Amino acid sequence: MPLPLAGGPEFDRIRAIVDALGPRASALGSDVALVPIGGDRLAFSTDVSVEGVHFRRDWLSFEEIGWRSTASALSDLAAAAAECVGVLVALTANRREPEETFVSVMRGVDAAVESVGGLVLGGDLSRGEAMSLAVTVVGRSAPGISRRGARAGDGLWVTGALGGARAALAAWNAGRAPDAAARERFARPVPRLPAGRWLADHGATAMMDLSDGLGADAGHLAAASGLALRIELAQLPLHDSARAEAALSGQRPALFAAWGGEDYELLAAMPAEFAGTSELSLTRIGSFTEGTDVTFTLDGRPVTPGGYDHFA
Amino acid sequence: MPLPLAGGPEFDRIRAIVDALGPRASALGSDVALVPIGGDRLAFSTDVSVEGVHFRRDWLSFEEIGWRSTASALSDLAAAAAECVGVLVALTANRREPEETFVSVMRGVDAAVESVGGLVLGGDLSRGEAMSLAVTVVGRSAPGISRRGARAGDGLWVTGALGGARAALAAWNAGRAPDAAARERFARPVPRLPAGRWLADHGATAMMDLSDGLGADAGHLAAASGLALRIELAQLPLHDSARAEAALSGQRPALFAAWGGEDYELLAAMPAEFAGTSELSLTRIGSFTEGTDVTFTLDGRPVTPGGYDHFA
Repeated sequence: MPLPLAGGPEFDRIRAIVDALGPRASALGSDVALVPIGGDRLAFSTDVSVEGVHFRRDWLSFEEIGWRSTASALSDLAAAAAECVGVLVALTANRREPEETFVSVMRGVDAAVESVGGLVLGGDLSRGEAMSLAVTVVGRSAPGISRRGARAGDGLWVTGALGGARAALAAWNAGRAPDAAARERFARPVPRLPAGRWLADHGATAMMDLSDGLGADAGHLAAASGLALRIELAQLPLHDSARAEAALSGQRPALFAAWGGEDYELLAAMPAEFAGTSELSLTRIGSFTEGTDVTFTLDGRPVTPGGYDHFA
Repeated sequence: MPLPLAGGPEFDRIRAIVDALGPRASALGSDVALVPIGGDRLAFSTDVSVEGVHFRRDWLSFEEIGWRSTASALSDLAAAAAECVGVLVALTANRREPEETFVSVMRGVDAAVESVGGLVLGGDLSRGEAMSLAVTVVGRSAPGISRRGARAGDGLWVTGALGGARAALAAWNAGRAPDAAARERFARPVPRLPAGRWLADHGATAMMDLSDGLGADAGHLAAASGLALRIELAQLPLHDSARAEAALSGQRPALFAAWGGEDYELLAAMPAEFAGTSELSLTRIGSFTEGTDVTFTLDGRPVTPGGYDHFA
């Protein structure tokens, strides 16, 4: 069975690996592996953050580097409606890096995992050229929700507001300091574990976290359930900084937010009759239907995924 | 309570991190974290291998790089007398690396984990300058054995034969090809999970794996139990290639083997009355006593740890 992933070079590599390893590696290509152990269903995921690729030390403090790397891995537990048991961290850094760097990164790791009630279970330090953190998260997942399972007619919902992390990146890339709210969204994303459990408790049929941006991730969610998705971007909950940053570059804010990554909000399929809640920041942005494509509209007119939109 | 680790810059950094994080990070500084979940006691450990630090692509094939990185992490499960549930791998490589590289590394990972009955539970691919693999292992550990727990009077035992991996390194570093047996020891170390469980079932009171060499690791095992260790190096089980390589450089084979790393054999404290077995390659090399130091003798005469021994 082909892996239910959308296109892209990373996914081609994952497909090649899964083809080579066969069913023994069936957990690859999922955000989390779910393993029944002694009455529990454990959730595992690993995520690597590399300096110069995922973070830069002139943008973030070492504590923030630790927090952000850990939060992005914990976000996979949120999408599995799991609670956090703990994390393990393999930290690689240049041998000339002072001891305080290691301590600060690990303080950030610990703060992120403490925020969701887990422990630092283990670690390894190594020297290497660039700094990198490989964070493995361990969770306990009762309902066993995954990316698959959405049904035609289900609504597509998203937590929080989108585009804040992209706003920070856009400012840094333009040589400006991002505003405080955008910077916070990039530096200290909040892993949505309570929201993940709430959604699962209230009937979610499929769930994933937004790491590559709605424009890319919606395709994975639709493919995993073998369905089409219609998304109306005028409904998108926008982070204030995304509005401001989009305006600066003459882009439409909804497109700026939809094609920005690293928001670490949750995308969930909910039954058609689900009407929202006051307990959680949740917005309905589309519907699952029979078919295979993801269609984005803005005010009812089709828009094409990818890249920037330069008309004002 | 100070961390029961011997000296060295890596251990100083770990101590600084544990001091900063406090009891929330008490699992750091151990080879494995043991977490009771359901009715089971799960064992977790993470280990990072970096190109140019832990392996070189002109020495090993990509499959061997995958095997070796995974086996070194699995070795921590062996020391916890755990059985393997699976592994997660974060693989970083240059963006110009062909797809076949990723597939080959992951074939090696999979072969190593299959050899001990586990699965590849998850993975992440990232680009980065140097290749690195962060391998997290998940195991199930019934008895909950650790580095602590040895008693004065216990014997110190080691599995297998030592010095083979160092023999391969010595040959490569001298610009020679290692002999096949030495190369195999370096490229495809065998994680000693069955031996770990056997030792625990037969009364082992403390256990660890040999990654930094007996000369360094014996200190950690003694410190963890708050005891002294007397080790007679004439008893050391020597890998044939270690004898040959030590002879070439005019070193005494037992010292060559004792201060060579990456054998991934097990070091175990066994009750004084334990007399060995025919089921397993096991050699008694010393005893735990009251006190705090590790004393190495060779034919009854004290030898000093560290460095090379240049008399013939």
